[in-house]
Amino acid sequence: MKIHYECIACTVAQAQKITEMSTEDVEMRKRAMVFLANRLGEFFREDSVPATDGGRLFLELYDFLGDDDPFGEYKRISTGLARSVAAEVRRVGDIKRALKLAIAGNTIDFAVSYGPKKIGNDLFDLASRELYIDQSDELLMELERAKTLLYLVDNCGEIYFDRIFIELIRREFPALDVYVAAKEGPIINDATVEDLREAGFDKIARVISTGSRLPGAPLEYASPEFLRLFERADVIIAKGQANFETLSDLGDGRIFFLLRAKCSPISRELGVPKGALVCMRSKF
Amino acid sequence: MKIHYECIACTVAQAQKITEMSTEDVEMRKRAMVFLANRLGEFFREDSVPATDGGRLFLELYDFLGDDDPFGEYKRISTGLARSVAAEVRRVGDIKRALKLAIAGNTIDFAVSYGPKKIGNDLFDLASRELYIDQSDELLMELERAKTLLYLVDNCGEIYFDRIFIELIRREFPALDVYVAAKEGPIINDATVEDLREAGFDKIARVISTGSRLPGAPLEYASPEFLRLFERADVIIAKGQANFETLSDLGDGRIFFLLRAKCSPISRELGVPKGALVCMRSKF
Repeated sequence: MKIHYECIACTVAQAQKITEMSTEDVEMRKRAMVFLANRLGEFFREDSVPATDGGRLFLELYDFLGDDDPFGEYKRISTGLARSVAAEVRRVGDIKRALKLAIAGNTIDFAVSYGPKKIGNDLFDLASRELYIDQSDELLMELERAKTLLYLVDNCGEIYFDRIFIELIRREFPALDVYVAAKEGPIINDATVEDLREAGFDKIARVISTGSRLPGAPLEYASPEFLRLFERADVIIAKGQANFETLSDLGDGRIFFLLRAKCSPISRELGVPKGALVCMRSKF
Repeated sequence: MKIHYECIACTVAQAQKITEMSTEDVEMRKRAMVFLANRLGEFFREDSVPATDGGRLFLELYDFLGDDDPFGEYKRISTGLARSVAAEVRRVGDIKRALKLAIAGNTIDFAVSYGPKKIGNDLFDLASRELYIDQSDELLMELERAKTLLYLVDNCGEIYFDRIFIELIRREFPALDVYVAAKEGPIINDATVEDLREAGFDKIARVISTGSRLPGAPLEYASPEFLRLFERADVIIAKGQANFETLSDLGDGRIFFLLRAKCSPISRELGVPKGALVCMRSKF
C-alpha cells in the first residue's frame, strides 16, 4: 500500500508521541520535532509505504533523541496487562474464536489505566462481532494442506492472544511447521523477537526475526534468512496494519491479513468501514 | 512567541484540513500533502513564529492547490450564524460583559451543525466565567487616557462580537480614534478587511489592513501604513492566539491580549490552564 493523504499528518503526530514518550524536556522535544520537520520530505514521496518510510523516519528520530526504545515503559505495562487477560481467556477452545480474539487483541490499548477485567470485557465484546470480511474458512482449508506457516506478529501485548491462536492451530494441524516472526529490535510498540521469547513462543514454534526493526515486513529490508522462509511458506498470516501496508502490493495469495481497519487509509484501501475486523486473503 | 514542540504536528494537521476543505479528490490531497512534507523544513526552525511561518506555508499550499480561499464556504456559514447570534446579544449594555463576549466569540465553532440558539447559550456560558487573568480595569484606564486605539481582530464570525464591544468602547470614550485592522486577503478562517466592511465596521471605526494575509500581525510583513498606525496607537487590543504569537515578543505595554488559551503552547507560554480566558497586558 502506498501512502494516502492522511498518512503524513498521522506520521508527524506519532513522531510527536515518540518525543513525548522519550523525554520530559520541552526544549529537547522541540529540537527533535524541528529535526523531524527537516527530514520529513526525504521520506514521504507519492510512492512511499507508510509503515516502511514512517518507520525509517522514526529510527532517525530515535537516533536524534539518543533513545533506542521510547515505548519501553509503555510496552512493559501492555505486556503485563495482556498477559493477565490472556491467562483468563486461554480456555477459548474454538479456533475461530481464538482467531477473532487475536484480531481484537490488535486494537485494545493495553496501556490505559483501567484493569485487566475491563480490558478482558472489551476484548470479548470486540471478538463477539462478526468479521466484516471473513475468509477464515479458506485460511483453515489452506492450513490443512500446508506444510509451513509463517505468522507475522504486530504489537506487544497482542502477542499473548496470537499465542493462544497459534496453540490451537498446532493442536488442529499437528504436522504443520510454524514460524513466528517479529522485529529485530524495538520500533514504536511492535513486538521484537526478544518479546516473543519472553512470551514463550520458542516453546510452541520457531521464532525468527524479519531482519529489520521496521514495522510490518518490508521485504527490501528483510534478512536473507527471512526471505528464504517467506518464499517457502505455504501460508502467511499477517497481523495488523503495518504488515498489510508492507505486503498488500505483492498480490500474493498465500497471505491472509488479520486486522482491524483502524484508520481511513486502510479502510479506504480495503473498502470496509473504519473499525471493521477482517480476515482477508490477499488479492492475487 | 517562538514555536513550541507541538506546533509542527498542529500545523501539519491544519494543512490537512486545508486540503480537505479545498478538494474532494484524494489524489490531489495526497499530492498537496507530499508537497507540504517537502516544504515543512524550510518554514520550521527553532526560532519560527507559528502563526507567521505556518501562515507562509499555508499560502504556498493555497498556491499549490490553486485555491485562494479553501475556508470560503466555512466562513460564509460562520458569518451567517455569528450575525444572527450577535443580533440576540446586542443589548449587553455593560462594557466588561461585552469584552468577555468578544473573547468568548473567539472560541466558538460557528460552523458546527447546531443552530444560533445553542451557540448563543454556549457563548453566554463561556462569558459568564471569570477571566483567568483579568487586567480589564487597566485596559479601560488606558483607554480613558488614549487618543488612538488599534483593534486587531482575529476570525470571521467572532468579529460580530468585536463589533458590539467596539460600539460600547466608542460610547464610553467618544473622543477616541478607533482603527480596526484585519488581513489583506483570505488565510484560514481569519477575517479580512472585506469581511470587516461587510460587517459594517466602516460605520463605527476606520478599517485598515495589516498589509499581509498572514495570521496575526507580523510587523516584518506589515504595510508602511499599518506600521505607522501601530507606532502611534496609544492602546492596542490584540484578539486571539495568532495576534499573541506575532506580538508577544515585542514587550510592548500598549498591547492587551484578549484570548482563550486553546492549545498547550499558548497556555504554557501564558502560565495559565488550557481553556482559560484572559485579558492580559503585554509584559514590558
